Formats: sequence, structure tokens, C-alpha cells
Amino acid sequence: MAIAEEMLALAIEAQKASRKMAVLSSGVKNELLLKMATALETAESELQRENEKDLQAAREKGMAAAMVDRLALTPERIKGMADGLREVAALPDPVGEVTGMWLRPNGIQVGRQRIPLGVIGIIYESRPNVTADAAGLCLKSGNAVVLRGGSEAIHSNTAIGSILQQAMQEMGLPKAALQVVTTSDRNAVTELLKLEDQIDLIIPRGGEGLIRFVSENSRIPVIKHYKGVCHTYVDKAADLQMAEDICINEKVQRPGVCNAMETLLIHQDIAAEFLPQITAAMRKEGVELRGCEKSLQIVPDLVAATEEDWPAEYLELILAVRVVESFEQAKEHIETYGSLHTEVIVTNDYELSQRFLKEINSSVVMVNASSRFSDGNQLGLGAEIGISTTKLHSFGPMGLEDLTTRKFVVLGSGQIRS
Amino acid sequence: MAIAEEMLALAIEAQKASRKMAVLSSGVKNELLLKMATALETAESELQRENEKDLQAAREKGMAAAMVDRLALTPERIKGMADGLREVAALPDPVGEVTGMWLRPNGIQVGRQRIPLGVIGIIYESRPNVTADAAGLCLKSGNAVVLRGGSEAIHSNTAIGSILQQAMQEMGLPKAALQVVTTSDRNAVTELLKLEDQIDLIIPRGGEGLIRFVSENSRIPVIKHYKGVCHTYVDKAADLQMAEDICINEKVQRPGVCNAMETLLIHQDIAAEFLPQITAAMRKEGVELRGCEKSLQIVPDLVAATEEDWPAEYLELILAVRVVESFEQAKEHIETYGSLHTEVIVTNDYELSQRFLKEINSSVVMVNASSRFSDGNQLGLGAEIGISTTKLHSFGPMGLEDLTTRKFVVLGSGQIRS
Repeated sequence: MAIAEEMLALAIEAQKASRKMAVLSSGVKNELLLKMATALETAESELQRENEKDLQAAREKGMAAAMVDRLALTPERIKGMADGLREVAALPDPVGEVTGMWLRPNGIQVGRQRIPLGVIGIIYESRPNVTADAAGLCLKSGNAVVLRGGSEAIHSNTAIGSILQQAMQEMGLPKAALQVVTTSDRNAVTELLKLEDQIDLIIPRGGEGLIRFVSENSRIPVIKHYKGVCHTYVDKAADLQMAEDICINEKVQRPGVCNAMETLLIHQDIAAEFLPQITAAMRKEGVELRGCEKSLQIVPDLVAATEEDWPAEYLELILAVRVVESFEQAKEHIETYGSLHTEVIVTNDYELSQRFLKEINSSVVMVNASSRFSDGNQLGLGAEIGISTTKLHSFGPMGLEDLTTRKFVVLGSGQIRS
Repeated sequence: MAIAEEMLALAIEAQKASRKMAVLSSGVKNELLLKMATALETAESELQRENEKDLQAAREKGMAAAMVDRLALTPERIKGMADGLREVAALPDPVGEVTGMWLRPNGIQVGRQRIPLGVIGIIYESRPNVTADAAGLCLKSGNAVVLRGGSEAIHSNTAIGSILQQAMQEMGLPKAALQVVTTSDRNAVTELLKLEDQIDLIIPRGGEGLIRFVSENSRIPVIKHYKGVCHTYVDKAADLQMAEDICINEKVQRPGVCNAMETLLIHQDIAAEFLPQITAAMRKEGVELRGCEKSLQIVPDLVAATEEDWPAEYLELILAVRVVESFEQAKEHIETYGSLHTEVIVTNDYELSQRFLKEINSSVVMVNASSRFSDGNQLGLGAEIGISTTKLHSFGPMGLEDLTTRKFVVLGSGQIRS
């Protein structure tokens, strides 16, 4: 079968299965997720055997050790996938929730009720654990899911998929609701992205290249974020020790992730005190600081920042620093260079904290807390399917609720329109 | 200036202005809308003068009388636009609403707060009142709006736009937040649809051709509905007089709109009684019925339906009728031929009513009420910017709330991640 037909057939099956998934009770879905978790743990040796094929191919290709490590399914990581499924099973089910119901003057009752989106396509790279994590979230929210991982993890993803499908079948559920695209045909993704009548949403997870490719080639709505250039603004009314603690946490605790701080903005009134303080603290942690002209006047041995540093997502122990004249200038900087991911203010000025929350255009805005809290788990969504830095449908970290939409339900007693 | 640059410049101005609109208080926005309403009424003769140019051009082109009529700005229609703006001013402002706030174990408070989408592009045909209606909804929800109407209404749209802009300027608000694209260059739309970094959402309003063109050419998310093929299922447990009243209302009250019924599904157990009853009632109203084979056995002089009748959106006094064996068959019919717009069940069977609401995949599902209630006004959203039959962001009639998204706000007291 040609790849276009193969993908269409698969998506049609997924769509049919999605209708069955949509009406399952939470109890059945939770039971399924728990069964899947046990199945993964039971299949540990099988999973490791299949994973070894991917690892060997990666080593033969000369893949970097860090990349090979990301591919590996250790017993801990297998347990991690299983525990992830158990956590999702324990989360409240968004499907069926009526978010509001009101009575119209003519006596009809109108409500908005959460329903699954339908079929969700996940296009991802490297880590095979995404297969189980994404499947758990999509199935719990009553959706069908089509998973397309990278070729480097093909054996691992296929094995995880078939173990999860078996659990579905044992419960009499349609295994077409969980499909792992295993073909080696490179056009599989392009073909999937055309199927707007069958697939309701595409979520790409991976590097900027993957995300751009998916979003430029998709006729299906895509939820995405390209990068996280997170800013922290230390205001003149900040508690400077708190500011130091937050900044260090944001930059150092895990520098390679999208919610790490990339640019520090410091109000000029406290720069003479705070900049040397934070420079010393950052340097102790091995961070290289790249400062604006004003910063260099205060700490002359900083690396001089260039225009390229302001929009940079370093993802390593480098920090851009700029001294600003005012909140307004900080805001302007964020508007110019930000990525709508996460911005933080450290201040004890009540009025300014409220202005920051209101006026800063970003998916997550924080007062006196580390940007590292900007993920679905930490914010209390339970688990995260991705982060959206575009405003349609979802904005910011996405949990189960973001995999649903709402329909109108109307309860009448014979009303007609006059 | 080339059209691409012209559209980009316009969209950049709109984006800048959107940041100012986003932080306006409800009071200021309401005052603006009321001022705009008065300005339109005051400018009645100017509007009619400009409108006459469009009408004359239309007549010269030999446009059908009904189409020319849709273009006309009568004093009543001008008052209608003004009253529409006053109604939107009276609606609650969705911006700023915190839809939930919770405390995390570490003491940070996390909330989700409604914010405007940013810049909304409206691409529409014919009726110039859309210019004022759409502007009112977009501005009230804190957005900037770029309006591109049809060339046949160019003078009317330009006049309305400049009157509304003047009201903005008199209040010291940025007129770039409301832009009417007046160029005669046909590539204006194509160029606008490329500006994904400046425009957040596109809403096309018009015929299926326009909507398909926009959705195929846009890099910006599009909210759309192609057509409304609304079904009513009269169950065996229906009150047949209620069913008749509802069906007549759905088909006859205004047949040319998307929430009119197009297909009637009748349970076989009551078909011998209800089909002759509804046929007589419909014929009295001038409706032509096209029936399935089973229908023809009961009422032999019906027109025989063909496969083309089931997905048809007639928008006139024609009704497809099918006798079904069961709820399941009705559901399957709706799944096969429906457009995810509005589906109705008439029944007195409680359990079945609940199954219908749960299992029917459509943006609006109703029990014992006319499909004609399926619009934003009737459902209580206040006013309607459009209807979405795709599930991302919004599903069903869209009001002010659907022109917003939610960001996360986090209130901490120095928390860092461990």
C-alpha cells in the first residue's frame, strides 16, 4: 500500500475508535491505564531487548553518548513510564464536566460540556518514554492517539506500543485508538499532516527544526512552542536575597530546559548592589554572564553582550544581563525579545506586581517565584502533554483539560423560536 | 508600496495597538462602543451616500436584486448596527476573569486568567454591517481587529471604518486597533493570511468558497464552519405535536440559515403516524419532502431521496426525511452525513435523551428544542462573532469569551524548585 493510503486507513481507524473512547467512563479509562502500567513493568526484559537494537544502531551510527543515553530504556525509566500512567489514572477526568449551565428567558437550559477532541497526532523525537506518557494523557481524556516517534527509537516505540495495545485488547477496547506509526517511510509524517478530516490536533515534541517542519506542513491545527526565552526582572523594590535565590534556581538548577531563565533584567536603582552580588553567585555556579553597556560599567569584567544575546535561548550556563531604567523598559525588552513562555518579576511593590501580571504578554507570568515552576506538573495540572506559546486553544503548559473542547448542550421542553 | 509590505505594516501597527487595547478597563471600552454607536447614527446621511456608490456599482454589474438588497444600508440597518454596539457594551467583559486559582503544596498560588487573543482578522462578504458588528466584539474583548470586506461593499465598509476610527481617536485610543483594508488589490487577503507573527486568529464569514479559500491559504489559525446540515431525530417516545411544532419551526421559520433543519430522522415505530402528519404540516408551509424508501412506503407521493440528499444543505424549503430503525441508526446517519453544527432529539425518554446528549458528536446537541436556537444570541452568549464546527479553541457559536485565551498567573513568596 502506498504511504498516503496507509496513513489514511490508519487515521480512519483511529477516528472510528475515538468515538468509542469518547463515551468510556472514567472508571474504565483508569483501569486501562493501570493495566498498561503493569504491562510495561511485566515486559521489562522484552522492552530492554528491543531497546538494545535501537541503542546498538545509534552507537554504530556514531551518535553522541548523551543522545544514546536519552534513548536508553533502563529499568528505572520503564518504572517511570508505568508510574506516569498511574499518576494520570489518579487525575480527575475532564470529560463530561459542565463548565457552566444557565437558564434562558424562554426556559431552555444551556450548558457547555467538556468532550474529547477526537484524534490527536503526536510527532516526537528521541525519548521513547513519550510513547507511553502521551498515550496515557490522550486516552485518559477520551481521545484516540496516533504516535510517530523518531526512526532512532523505532524498535523501542514499537514494543511499547504493542504492549499498550495488548492491554487495550484485553479490556475489549479498540486498539486502533492507540497507534504507533512504525513504517520507515519518511513521508509518513507529511501524509499524516494532511488528514484534517480525521485528525483533530497535532502536537510536535522535539527540537525547533521538527516543530517548524510540522507546523509548516500541517493542514491540521498544531499546538507548539518553538523556544523558551524566559526573563526575570529584578525590580528596585525586590528583596535582593530572594532575587538571588530565585535567579540562581532559574539558571542553574536545570539549565537545558525551556523554563530556565535566559535573560536577567535589573532595575538601575539597585544594579550597583545586585549586579555584583548576582555575578559572584552565578560565577560560583559556573555561569558566564553577558552584560549590556550599563552592566559593564558596574562589573567591568563581564562579557559584553551583543544584539544576538537578547533573543538567545542558551540552554546552558550562560546568562544575558541588562540594566533597565524602569518597569516600562523591562516590559519593552520582553515584548521585543520574549517568546511568550514565562516571565518573572521579583518585587515587593504590590502595585507593580499587579501591573506585571496584567501587562506582560506571556503564557505564564510570575511574581516572586522561580520560572522553573512553569510546567504542567509544578503548576498543578497533574501532567503535561506540551507547552503552547501560541494563543489559540491553549496558552502555556497543557494538561488533560487542554486535550478536550466544549460542546453546547440544550435542554428544552418544546420551545420554538418566534 | 507593494501589497505585501502594506499588509505587513498595517498588521504591525495593529499588533502595537492591540497591546494598548489589552489593558483598557471595561469602562473605557464600553464608553468607546457607545460613542461609536452614536457616531454611526449621526453619520446616517454620509453612510447612505457612500453606500449608494456600492449599490449603483452593483446594479450596473447586474447583481441580483436580493444581493443588492443585502448590501443596502437603510436607516433601520444603520440603527441596527448602532444598537448592536450598545448591546455588546452592555455585555460582561471576559478579560481579566480568573477562571480558577489554586494553592500548590509549596505555597505558590496558580491561576488562569482571561486575556485578549491579540489581533483578529475578519474576512467577509457582502453585508457591510459586519464591519461594525465584528469591530464591536473584537474591541470589547480587548483585541485589535483587521477587517477585510468584499469589494462590492468597499465604499460602505470604508465609511463605517472611518467613522468608528474617529470615535477611537476622540477618546485618545489608537485607531490602528481597528483597520479596514480598503485596497482594491485582490492579493490583500493572501498577504494578510501569511502574517502569523502579527495576527493571532482569522475568522472568515461568508460562503463556502470564501471559507475554503481562507482556510487553505492561511498560516494563521482559522476558526470556521463550512455548512450546517442539522438533523432532528423524532424518537418513538416523542410527543408528536411537540415534534411537529419543533420541526416546522426548524424548517420554515427561516430556511436560509445554517441552523435550519435539513434532515428529519423518524423512528420506524411512529413513522406510520408521524410521517403523514409532518408531511401535511410541511406541505401547508410549502416544503418539499424527499423521503427514503421506507418513507415512500408510508407516504407514496414524496419525492424519492437520492444519496445526494443526505449531505445536502438546502437552505430552502426542501427537507430530506429518513425512517430509521433505532437511535443507533440515527446516530450512524448523523455521524456519516452531519456537519458538527446542531442536532436535535425530540423524545420523552429520559435515558435516551441523556445518551443523545452524550453520544452525538456535534457542537450543539439539543433535547426538545428547536435547532433555530443554535446561535450566540439565543444561547445567551450575548452576540456572536461566528460559529465553529472544528474543535480547536471553540466549538459551536462563539461569543466574547471565545475571542480570549487564558494565561497562567503565579503568586509566590520566594519559592524555588528543589
